[in-house]
Formats: sequence, C-alpha cells, structure tokens
Amino acid sequence: MATIKDVAKLAGVSVATVSRVINNSPKAKGVTREAVLNAMESLQYHPNANARALARQTTGTIGLIVCDVSDPFFGAMVKATEQVAYASGNFLLIGNGYHDEHKERQAIEQLIRHQCEALVVHAKTLSDDELRGLMQQIPGMVLINRILPGLESRCVALDDRYGSRLATNYLIQQGHRNIGIICSDHKISDAEDRLQGYRDALTEHQIAITEKRIAYGSPDEVGGEKALIELLERNQKITAVVCYNDTMAAGALSVLSDNNIQVPQDMSLIGFDDVLIARYLRPGLTTVRYPVVSMATQAAELALALAQGKLLPDVTNLFNPTLVKRHSVSGLISTDKDS
Amino acid sequence: MATIKDVAKLAGVSVATVSRVINNSPKAKGVTREAVLNAMESLQYHPNANARALARQTTGTIGLIVCDVSDPFFGAMVKATEQVAYASGNFLLIGNGYHDEHKERQAIEQLIRHQCEALVVHAKTLSDDELRGLMQQIPGMVLINRILPGLESRCVALDDRYGSRLATNYLIQQGHRNIGIICSDHKISDAEDRLQGYRDALTEHQIAITEKRIAYGSPDEVGGEKALIELLERNQKITAVVCYNDTMAAGALSVLSDNNIQVPQDMSLIGFDDVLIARYLRPGLTTVRYPVVSMATQAAELALALAQGKLLPDVTNLFNPTLVKRHSVSGLISTDKDS
Repeated sequence: MATIKDVAKLAGVSVATVSRVINNSPKAKGVTREAVLNAMESLQYHPNANARALARQTTGTIGLIVCDVSDPFFGAMVKATEQVAYASGNFLLIGNGYHDEHKERQAIEQLIRHQCEALVVHAKTLSDDELRGLMQQIPGMVLINRILPGLESRCVALDDRYGSRLATNYLIQQGHRNIGIICSDHKISDAEDRLQGYRDALTEHQIAITEKRIAYGSPDEVGGEKALIELLERNQKITAVVCYNDTMAAGALSVLSDNNIQVPQDMSLIGFDDVLIARYLRPGLTTVRYPVVSMATQAAELALALAQGKLLPDVTNLFNPTLVKRHSVSGLISTDKDS
Repeated sequence: MATIKDVAKLAGVSVATVSRVINNSPKAKGVTREAVLNAMESLQYHPNANARALARQTTGTIGLIVCDVSDPFFGAMVKATEQVAYASGNFLLIGNGYHDEHKERQAIEQLIRHQCEALVVHAKTLSDDELRGLMQQIPGMVLINRILPGLESRCVALDDRYGSRLATNYLIQQGHRNIGIICSDHKISDAEDRLQGYRDALTEHQIAITEKRIAYGSPDEVGGEKALIELLERNQKITAVVCYNDTMAAGALSVLSDNNIQVPQDMSLIGFDDVLIARYLRPGLTTVRYPVVSMATQAAELALALAQGKLLPDVTNLFNPTLVKRHSVSGLISTDKDS
C-alpha cells in the first residue's frame, strides 16, 4: 500500500505538506493542495487514522456503548448519536454491552483503546465505583440512562419510576383495579424502577399488591409472549396489563389475539418507550414516551463539549416520560371491588 | 494519563516486558505478568490501540457498513457479525451508509482509516468500479447483499428476484389474480429485483401487469402505510399485496385494520425478510425468509479468513430465500377472470 512518502514524491512536495493537506490545514491550498489530492487518489492512499491519532492525540471519533443495537430502542439511540457525530465532523464507533458485566467492561475498554475522545456509555451492570473511576480518567465520558451520584452533571437519564407510575395511574383512572405487570428479567435499575412505579401507584390508591400479578420475561417480543401467558394461566381476573416496553407489549398482544381476548374491550394494555412499531400495532399501543432521540442527542453533545474542556448550558440531566394515548386502553365500569 | 513507562517503572520491569504482557506473549508469565497487570490496574493504564496497531500493523477489528442500524433487518446483521468478531477475539466497528453514495464512501473510508483488516460492506449506491478498486486494495473486504462481477467469491448475496417471484407465485397458487405490490422507493438493486420477481411471476401465469397496482414508499412502517393507502385509493380490486419487506407490511396491515378490511379474508398480505415482528403481528405474517444471520456470519468469517490470506471451504455466495407460511394469506375462490 502507498505511504505518505509516495504521495509526497508523486506530488513533488514535502511530507509535511502532504500532512497539512490531510489535516485540512489552511496553510495548504490552491495548486499544491490539488496536486496532493490527485496524488492521493492515483496512489489510492488512505491516511492511517492510527498514525494521525498518535500524532494529533485525537481521533475524531465518538464511542457509544449500548446494550444491543438489534433492539429498536437502542437502534434509535445509535441513530441520534450518529447524527450529532456526523454534524460535528466526527465518526461513530459502536459497542454492545448486552447488560453483561464482562462485555460492558470490554466494550468500554475497546473504545478507550481506539482513543475515542468522547464516549456515551449505556452501562447498567458495572458498579458506580468502576464507572466513576473511568469518568475521572476520561473527561469526555457521559452516561446515558443512569445517574451516578456525585457526577449527575455528566449523566442523562429518564425517570423510569415516574413513567411506570404514570402508566399504572392511567389504568387506575380508567377504573381498573386488577392490574398485572410484565417485567424485564434483566437485573438492571430500569427493570426495578419500572416495577417500583407500578407498586407506587397501586399503594397510592390503596390497591393491594399481588405477587401473582407480576410476571417476568426477556425484554422483547418472545419475553412478552411468555410473561403474558403466565399471567393468564394464574387466573388473577386481570383487566389491564402494564408492560415493561413496547416490544414485550407486541408479544403480549399476539397471545391475547390468539386467545380471542379483545384489546381493549376485554383487556387493556400499556407499553413503554414509544418505538415506531407501537404506532403500527393494532390496536395502536397506548404507551409511555421515552424521549430517546432528545436524550441521546444531548448526551453526545455533552460528551463532545466535555472532551474539549467546555461546558454546555442548560443540560437536562433527568428527563420526564409522557403518556401517549392510542387505542389499547379502555375504561372499565366495574362493580367488583379490588380482589 | 499513565504511559507504558510508568507501568514498567511501578512493576520494576522493562517497557519490553510490559509490551509482552499487553500482547499476551507466552514469554511473559507468572509473577512478572501479575506484577505488570497489577501496575496497569493501579495506574489505570489503557494500552493505546493506535500505537499497538502501528507497531503490529493490525488492530483486531472487523468493520461493518450497513444501511441503517436502526432498521431491525440491519440490527440482525450487526448482531451476527459481532458474534463472529467476539468469538475470534476481534472488536466490531460499525458505520451507516444510509443508501447514500457520499455517506457510503465516507463510512468505508473511515473504517479503512481505523485500519480494520476485515471489512464486511453493505454498499448499494457505489459503482462496481469503485468497489472493485477498494477490494483490490483491501484483501479482507467482503460485500454483503451484492454480487460484484469478477469478484463473486468475495460476495454474499440473496436471490431477491427469486424471493419475490416465490411470494407472488404463492399468491397466484392461492387463486389471486389482482395482485398489488408495495415497493421500496430506494434506488437500489434489491428494490428493482423484488419488483422484477413480481413481474416475472405474473408474466409466467399470463396475468397482465398493471402499473396502477404498483406503489412505492420508504422501506419502513411509514412507507408501507403510505403505499397501501395509494393502492386502495386507485380502486384496482386488489385481493392480495406483495410487500417489499415486513416493516412495510406492518404499516400496510395497520391501514387495512383501520379500514375494516380483514386480513386474510378480504385481503392477503405477504412480507419479505422474516424479522422478529413478522411472527408477532396479527395475523402472523406470511413472508419470505432472508437468512440474514447465516449470510452475515459467513461474510464475517470470509472477511477474517481473507484478511489472513486464507480461503474458506464451501462458501455459499448466493443464498436462496424460502417461504414462511403464517396466517396473512388465504385462498381465493374467484369467478372473476383477471381484470
């Protein structure tokens, strides 16, 4: 492969001049710049990002760790982060942590090794101490979907507990008392907080919490199907179900349809996240909106600013979820008291 | 930040020894290795991947270009490729090309600059010549979802035209004659080939092709909704619709449901890809399976082998789609001849 020396020779300039053209220095212009660019093209020379990074101590890359890009929620997070990267002339590197301690650590480590100066990290299994240690070393590291005590200004998160309370309260306002919940079986704060929000709302309305109305599954269509089947089997006279996320709700909806249980006439269903498919399920899914695009955009902008030693004005660290009313919840006029 | 010299000093060994530990050399073992690892940990030293890459001329990274990771089809492609990377001790870097010539070129360029030795590229807008030039420079570059004449052995693709013919033929076998199609409005071969497969099947059965039964939209739920509305408006007495992909089918299904057009009783619908949601839509979507996991796995393994100057035995370059029968297609006993 061609080297920078070959390019300099062909263009009839010094290596330093080629380097200036590659780095878009204002000193290299006009005919010289053209000659270098032509030489690069005819030799098919690709500047080595590693060599440039070592020389400049910067790679022009933002690193992003998500749980799993194949989950539509994280797909939306990637897309929003990439748009910030693209607009600022940076390139995005992505790693998956799969809510696994070892994989989260390894993915972060790899992005640090690739000298990403800005890092947006969705890590749910690493300890506060481990993350704090990394953030102290890397000024441009920001957490998404987690608040680290003492470093709140470098975190962007959603009030999950409030979101789930909002969903459950809405069902209660519609007259429901026998409300089930399908939870994620991942051992992460989101799962605990969303379950706690459900408990909060029931307690607030003096409705007894029944463990048999709580079921678990993987946070996707398959897990939603499994958890909803469990709730039905337990014969708890449930009239409404709070779902951990929209993809679990899609799985639940398919089970209800197969069993001729009409949504919302016989059973109300409420999701979480408001991913695109929520709008296209039938009935359209009533859900809680996770403003993932706003949050990821802000996290990426914050990470870039911090990497350059700057501060961003007006950063929102804890976002609020909102209710999106579609057609999967109906009012219940019930003569039953809570059972 | 700590340097390799700091680590050597603290561990009481030479820089060369630290380097051996970092590179997992068998020469560095026992107490020495432990001392170096402890020093790295207490100094929070991260080996610089750029420096290592320059020294070793390898970065241990596979690069993958997809159209858009937030599309569930490409999410599945990323996940399969990452599993190959993980199993072989490599790290995955991902770029999005968005079916845009400039962005595809830029994303490939960035991954080359990051010295990915193996590259799996989904590029649909760059010319054959441009891709051929890149592949001649980079021995570990493999194309997915595209066959480049002369370099077939480094390509992994699906017979899209056959897949769409399969779908259309199945509808014809079920008695349908007035068959519509909703196509992707992206100017890529997949879109052309899937439309051509539909035309092939109709021609084969002497059914006239009516341009009014062909509608276009973006290849997602929103585009499927729009295209199906157009087909309904044109009043073509359609009894079945071939969809470009499953997400367009999900959008189409929502329009049919809102208009009380029962699937499959009043209208049959067939998708393409067999992404997870196809199984959870109601009715479950009959579709054509795109074996994306097998294809991405093989493409990544092939790229890694080629990067090391090896060949893989038994490579399948052109995969076959298969039919997945669920519940969105019904037989039609019609007294109408083709109109």
